[in-house]
Amino acid sequence: MAWDPGLEAAFTPRSVAVLGASTKERGGGNQFIWSMKDMGYEGTIYPINPNAEEILGIKCYPSLAAVPELPDLVIVAVGAGRAEQALEECIAKGARNIHMFTAGFAETGEEGGAELAERLREIAARGRLNIVGPNCMGIYSPRGRISPWGKLPAEVGPVAMITQSGALGGEFVRLASDHGLRMSKVISYGNGYVLDCTDYLEYFEGDPETKYIAMYLEGVRDGQKLLEMVKRISPKKPIVILKGGLTDAGAKAAASHTGSLAGENAIWDAFFAQSGAIRVDSTEEMVDVLQALVRLPPCSGRGVVLIGGAGGTGVQAADICARAGLSVPTISQEIQEELRGFIGVAGTSVRNPMDVGMQLRGPEDFVRVLEIVSRDQNIDLIMMVMHVWARGIRWRGAATKMYKLLVKFAKEPHRQPFCVAIRSPSENLESERERLSATKRFLKADIPVFKTIERACRALYKYTGYYRNLAETQNQ
Amino acid sequence: MAWDPGLEAAFTPRSVAVLGASTKERGGGNQFIWSMKDMGYEGTIYPINPNAEEILGIKCYPSLAAVPELPDLVIVAVGAGRAEQALEECIAKGARNIHMFTAGFAETGEEGGAELAERLREIAARGRLNIVGPNCMGIYSPRGRISPWGKLPAEVGPVAMITQSGALGGEFVRLASDHGLRMSKVISYGNGYVLDCTDYLEYFEGDPETKYIAMYLEGVRDGQKLLEMVKRISPKKPIVILKGGLTDAGAKAAASHTGSLAGENAIWDAFFAQSGAIRVDSTEEMVDVLQALVRLPPCSGRGVVLIGGAGGTGVQAADICARAGLSVPTISQEIQEELRGFIGVAGTSVRNPMDVGMQLRGPEDFVRVLEIVSRDQNIDLIMMVMHVWARGIRWRGAATKMYKLLVKFAKEPHRQPFCVAIRSPSENLESERERLSATKRFLKADIPVFKTIERACRALYKYTGYYRNLAETQNQ
Repeated sequence: MAWDPGLEAAFTPRSVAVLGASTKERGGGNQFIWSMKDMGYEGTIYPINPNAEEILGIKCYPSLAAVPELPDLVIVAVGAGRAEQALEECIAKGARNIHMFTAGFAETGEEGGAELAERLREIAARGRLNIVGPNCMGIYSPRGRISPWGKLPAEVGPVAMITQSGALGGEFVRLASDHGLRMSKVISYGNGYVLDCTDYLEYFEGDPETKYIAMYLEGVRDGQKLLEMVKRISPKKPIVILKGGLTDAGAKAAASHTGSLAGENAIWDAFFAQSGAIRVDSTEEMVDVLQALVRLPPCSGRGVVLIGGAGGTGVQAADICARAGLSVPTISQEIQEELRGFIGVAGTSVRNPMDVGMQLRGPEDFVRVLEIVSRDQNIDLIMMVMHVWARGIRWRGAATKMYKLLVKFAKEPHRQPFCVAIRSPSENLESERERLSATKRFLKADIPVFKTIERACRALYKYTGYYRNLAETQNQ
Repeated sequence: MAWDPGLEAAFTPRSVAVLGASTKERGGGNQFIWSMKDMGYEGTIYPINPNAEEILGIKCYPSLAAVPELPDLVIVAVGAGRAEQALEECIAKGARNIHMFTAGFAETGEEGGAELAERLREIAARGRLNIVGPNCMGIYSPRGRISPWGKLPAEVGPVAMITQSGALGGEFVRLASDHGLRMSKVISYGNGYVLDCTDYLEYFEGDPETKYIAMYLEGVRDGQKLLEMVKRISPKKPIVILKGGLTDAGAKAAASHTGSLAGENAIWDAFFAQSGAIRVDSTEEMVDVLQALVRLPPCSGRGVVLIGGAGGTGVQAADICARAGLSVPTISQEIQEELRGFIGVAGTSVRNPMDVGMQLRGPEDFVRVLEIVSRDQNIDLIMMVMHVWARGIRWRGAATKMYKLLVKFAKEPHRQPFCVAIRSPSENLESERERLSATKRFLKADIPVFKTIERACRALYKYTGYYRNLAETQNQ
């Protein structure tokens, strides 16, 4: 099925009907009603249940037919046994956009599941239904004030997500939000029996709100089509893909989850090599890479200067960089000498990693180091490594000034991409509080912050890889 | 130089002299005095400085010669230019045990550094000095109440550490402490010009307090000797090694740090293949592996059952397990059927990963799932995956009962090793608070807790690898 422009209305629905609203407060499809309320949804909600007058304080209707208007979106949250009948009711009403939460199809492996899926496709084709799902959480749209995961930010941002897993989608949105990233729309589409990932991709290609696309895929119906679309779209809008089920264990899990045939590692290796998509291995990495893409200027170099982190932790940082595919160029003799003008020899290093003490004689000196080092021709990227202990960062007193100077430095035009890795090598609430407070200050200034050096390196490697790949493609 | 039993006194010194105590509150060697005070050190401290009557409220002496007794430990914290003279003073006094904090030798790459190092070795040999260092943080000994890193636990535990980096050593001890692991002794030995890692290893081999040994190495003077010692010791006391400088970038950083020649990847690959040491890549992984070794019974199997984590997060968990070298066996048909007796079909899976809801009808049901699954012959290890959101774990109300039942389950004799991965896919203080509180409850019951599924998998793979290797060695 191809993309139907009619589905657009589902992202900013004037009214939403919930087939399978429950008399139990948290039962059936009520989570979607709760979530819309939490989001401050301003349209009309129609809970549908023949056995109730009112659900969650909202007037309830005995059937979809009884609803006084044509809802822009119908959420189907009935049991699998009643799914067909519910879709027939949608057709009778003239509804077009369906989010099918109902689970229990091919993914169960039970007899009859696959046949039910086939009949569902037939019904959708006959009634020209746009079905998101089944077995999924549906739509988060900040502009439309609808969400399947409770209260989420109502501000619109540049990142779209297409996901086969609702749990993973919710996780991604929350983690991205905590990092200050905002979404255009998120679609959790589960088994994808009717509309598939390529249909959603087509929509986001044309969506002016969307500048970056994140995808979590288990199985894909038309791999060739996906490849061609990603090739076409990714030079304009970077596409970050987390592919689930690339190991045997994961493939079996995917079969139980969305009934997908997920395997064939070699095929996916080829896909990633050819498509220009950025491959990630976890939700966290997805957020990390997007942070770099959204917040840093284009950069295809791999030479990192590491600043901060004494002795063995600096060695470890350099090892991590190199293992991630980045390089840690030795600072030129000339610049080393300039630095030695105000940095003592014992217990420090100005070669890279830079072990210069976080304080020196004050924040000015620290930022002076950054400025001098950034003149080195071999340095493409600047990573500041902070170590947070329970007692706080070692900038006591000078903290506010330090942040101010760092932000000013990072925002200067023609500056190399600047990011921060904030390590918290303790596990206690005080150090977490310190870490999160430092994180917030940098994020507020749109400086990417990573939780570990390893995560920073992986993200920098992949973000710069996107631009290396782009340059190669354009040269061909 | 071989191990000198006389150094034993340095771990529980009756008195400590600090050459290079400073009139500035936090200057020179004062951090060691501060740390001893913080630790509640009960012996006598002798600050040495010709220009002060008193330092940090303690009577100060103009020279080591003026100290009224022979200190069990002398901390040398003077500048590199005065290092030789300080050691001559130690010889004149008859002191034997020296922690040499002083930096500025071969690691600086400046002219004269290497020669100074050579002279230092000559002095040590002539005066029969046990020198820990130079360029290091020295000794943390809970029993002796001395520490170079401020207040640390005073309880003695089974883990020893030998580290070339003070920063990394402090980081390790703090992180391990937060995980409830306690140390026997920690030695930060920097450039290791006199006593080297093999000398310390020899000590810990015979130390009845030490059951596990962690090492951070940059360069090793006698690799063959290290190999033979690790081969001999590791079957009795597991040895976990973090080798810094295995990439070119890391090797250059190590040269700047401790003046070590760290490279030669192939040699280290062979070392790890032959020695029986457990190889780790970061401080965090070191703590993770030790948690598993200290807290779990011996196990050489790789078959994990994953419990908790819906949909795509389960697929991701299975992929992570498989990539880490573990297996995720499908639960036997018989046991699946038993589980299906009380777990509904839609939206769940009982195959592995298990997606059964964290609550079911209550904690009893959840633990019943664990009990039934643990009867599967292919399951060697049990990993519970918890996802912590800002709103807390989904056990509201039943939390205390759930923890109680889980701990009871985990502690039953002949139970498979049981561990918990607590993911916190949000970055905010509320979720961190939840995570840390759940972590504490499990750690208190000696159940290992890992911060991510990836870290849990790596640790389980390496801990079981130790026992696989042990079995192979014994069969030879």
